[in-house]
Amino acid sequence: MICKNLTISTEGHLLFAGQDVASLLREYGSPLYLFDEDRIRENCRTYYNAMKEAFGEKALPLYASKAASFKEIYRIVNSEQLGIDVVSCGEIYTAKAAGFDLSKTYFHSNNKTDEDIAFAIENGIGYFVADNEEELYAVDRIAAEKGICQKILLRLTPGIDTHTYEAINTGKVDSKFGSAIETGQAEAITKLALKLPHLQLMGFHCHVGSQVFDSDTFFRSAEIMLNFMAEMAKKHHYIAEELDLGGGYGVRYTESDPTIDIAANIHQVADCVKTKCAALGLPLPAIRLEPGRSIVADAGLTLYTVGTIKQIPGYKNYVSVDGGMTDNPRFALYNAPYTVVAAEKMNEETDFHCSVVGRCCESGDIIQENVALPSTIKRGDVLAVLTTGAYNFSMASNYNRIPRLPVVMLKEGTARLVVKRETLDDLIRNDI
Amino acid sequence: MICKNLTISTEGHLLFAGQDVASLLREYGSPLYLFDEDRIRENCRTYYNAMKEAFGEKALPLYASKAASFKEIYRIVNSEQLGIDVVSCGEIYTAKAAGFDLSKTYFHSNNKTDEDIAFAIENGIGYFVADNEEELYAVDRIAAEKGICQKILLRLTPGIDTHTYEAINTGKVDSKFGSAIETGQAEAITKLALKLPHLQLMGFHCHVGSQVFDSDTFFRSAEIMLNFMAEMAKKHHYIAEELDLGGGYGVRYTESDPTIDIAANIHQVADCVKTKCAALGLPLPAIRLEPGRSIVADAGLTLYTVGTIKQIPGYKNYVSVDGGMTDNPRFALYNAPYTVVAAEKMNEETDFHCSVVGRCCESGDIIQENVALPSTIKRGDVLAVLTTGAYNFSMASNYNRIPRLPVVMLKEGTARLVVKRETLDDLIRNDI
Repeated sequence: MICKNLTISTEGHLLFAGQDVASLLREYGSPLYLFDEDRIRENCRTYYNAMKEAFGEKALPLYASKAASFKEIYRIVNSEQLGIDVVSCGEIYTAKAAGFDLSKTYFHSNNKTDEDIAFAIENGIGYFVADNEEELYAVDRIAAEKGICQKILLRLTPGIDTHTYEAINTGKVDSKFGSAIETGQAEAITKLALKLPHLQLMGFHCHVGSQVFDSDTFFRSAEIMLNFMAEMAKKHHYIAEELDLGGGYGVRYTESDPTIDIAANIHQVADCVKTKCAALGLPLPAIRLEPGRSIVADAGLTLYTVGTIKQIPGYKNYVSVDGGMTDNPRFALYNAPYTVVAAEKMNEETDFHCSVVGRCCESGDIIQENVALPSTIKRGDVLAVLTTGAYNFSMASNYNRIPRLPVVMLKEGTARLVVKRETLDDLIRNDI
Repeated sequence: MICKNLTISTEGHLLFAGQDVASLLREYGSPLYLFDEDRIRENCRTYYNAMKEAFGEKALPLYASKAASFKEIYRIVNSEQLGIDVVSCGEIYTAKAAGFDLSKTYFHSNNKTDEDIAFAIENGIGYFVADNEEELYAVDRIAAEKGICQKILLRLTPGIDTHTYEAINTGKVDSKFGSAIETGQAEAITKLALKLPHLQLMGFHCHVGSQVFDSDTFFRSAEIMLNFMAEMAKKHHYIAEELDLGGGYGVRYTESDPTIDIAANIHQVADCVKTKCAALGLPLPAIRLEPGRSIVADAGLTLYTVGTIKQIPGYKNYVSVDGGMTDNPRFALYNAPYTVVAAEKMNEETDFHCSVVGRCCESGDIIQENVALPSTIKRGDVLAVLTTGAYNFSMASNYNRIPRLPVVMLKEGTARLVVKRETLDDLIRNDI
């Protein structure tokens, strides 16, 4: 199986975190998101320990919480001592409601409104990851009004094309995010940040893309960022204390995806960073990484109940489930690959080739194409879609007025509801 | 302008339904959906009157409410005497809460669960548009339990490719929807429907796709359906009372989209249907059409406030707004075209070429590319995205934990809130 928290019982049932997923579906209802708390914690510790070992005590991973944002995730990440990256007042509000230490919180976004900035400062946000000059002026002005000096990082674009999905490729010069080193705009914004009196410039940030498997991408971005830092030290006598290299390590959605040893990779990046710092005469900055997908993706899966099965002779077979693009829009958005299995038929041959489709009234409502399921698949069977912990719950909608799914957290043989299922009344709560 | 409910004041302000949209944004907050009640009613009447005139008194348009489903829309459509097409218990629940007459309600979906079927029958749904044999057995069984005979239509696929977006092209044989005429499955399901004792087969349904501008598509599907009906009359002595030709008339998202005279088109389709019925010796069935987009799209627009403006020399310009793929995912999903204008600078030259992007932490969060705005565009300006009444509110998400927008309904110079803005507390309401 693609992650070691997935096993198969002797009766051929899929177990997740050691628990029979179909039994959980019958207990909590269908469809359903499951999360494996131990796997989240293990993923957090992989980053935390490797970063402390490789980069020293000042290093810290920040969980990129847009991957999955709900109160219990913040509690778990907090107890694992990670910081977080947030992208909206909604994420700040959720983290705060969960008791998260906001001093370890980094506020991203290409477009923060004045209201967002005031809200974040009032709530004692640790850092703004400032995207552009307009934001610097606004943060400086609002920080002055509140009588504080606000810590910031500057988001820069190193000009690297990662060749992942276009929609999640963010390190290019031509990006809505950040200020480009290549165009001189990164230097201009650095000078501005150093000049504005209510800003404390702590360092620089970059993010080159998502679902990256080659460490070469991080080497290249670290090298470009460190060269820029050396240039700022020389020209403006500014020594950055922090360097945030963003997120991006890939996860395995299917057996054909590569595996990546994240701890080993972090050590390699550290070697590269240390060598480069020594060559440039720079002190080693406090390194930040922002894993999101690689913290939660393989700690989640989605369970559905099979409904209609349609065989169209000479064309295709369709297996419909009781969810779809409302709970997992990633196939509709990016043709994203996923592994789909029949949760109580794991020992059977899979020779029924089909598209697994959702229940929405839209042809593009597809969970996955070219899926192989057992030929005994029938209405009422349980399907599991693996590795759905990232960007499923967080991207869910009420399209077709379908209520959003609950989240059940598994730990050491126990299960607990951490997000309740939406009700029909929830759907019309704001309708007048 | 692309719809006559859009005008420009002498000061160069965009008016929608005669009201200054930027003033409404300042009153109700940003971002914001506006709807024009009179335009919804006019669109309803176009269908209602043309269908009654062209097809006779038994004809009825059904509003395909997945295009925009909230209580006030159902009240308006109800008062215009239309029926509705619904696709989930959530839509049924919303319609019922709005006092909609459920006897004029047609329940679609490729995958209705037993719970859905029971819920719909308990609430007195008028019709099931039954998709497949499994559903027929389930409806028959549950209708028997409830002691009723349930009216149904059968959804058939006529085998027409409309060459619109793949994701909204649903009339092909290779579809998750319906039973194909070409494969003999349509006849098989008809025989089954006639046999099951708690089903009353009222007729047939097809839907060939969305954003269709050529009447030829409807001619072809009507012809195929009527041929099938004649075959069923001959072979099984079954005369269908109703024929539902689905939805699909296109709307103008940009000036380059064609206009369509829907009333004239309906009369042409009626001529074709009547001629064909006479030739086949069939009585004229009660015709249903299911307009969704063409009822609400041009009755809606979205207002945003401009935030960050980024000019990357040698690359591109970006104008960020305070919404994005969370309130309008259609560019992210389909590269859908939209017209974007600066709401208080309508008389200015538009020579600033840019991408209008959202505030989500995702490169694919784009409202529209290749937009021309005035070169004076600046932080705080109001942008309007036109023709967003369909599939924007209904497809909205809380990605990035961004609260969903309110809906303000305009009528004869007045404005009223019909869906409240989500609050930060709404976001964590179901989090434990």
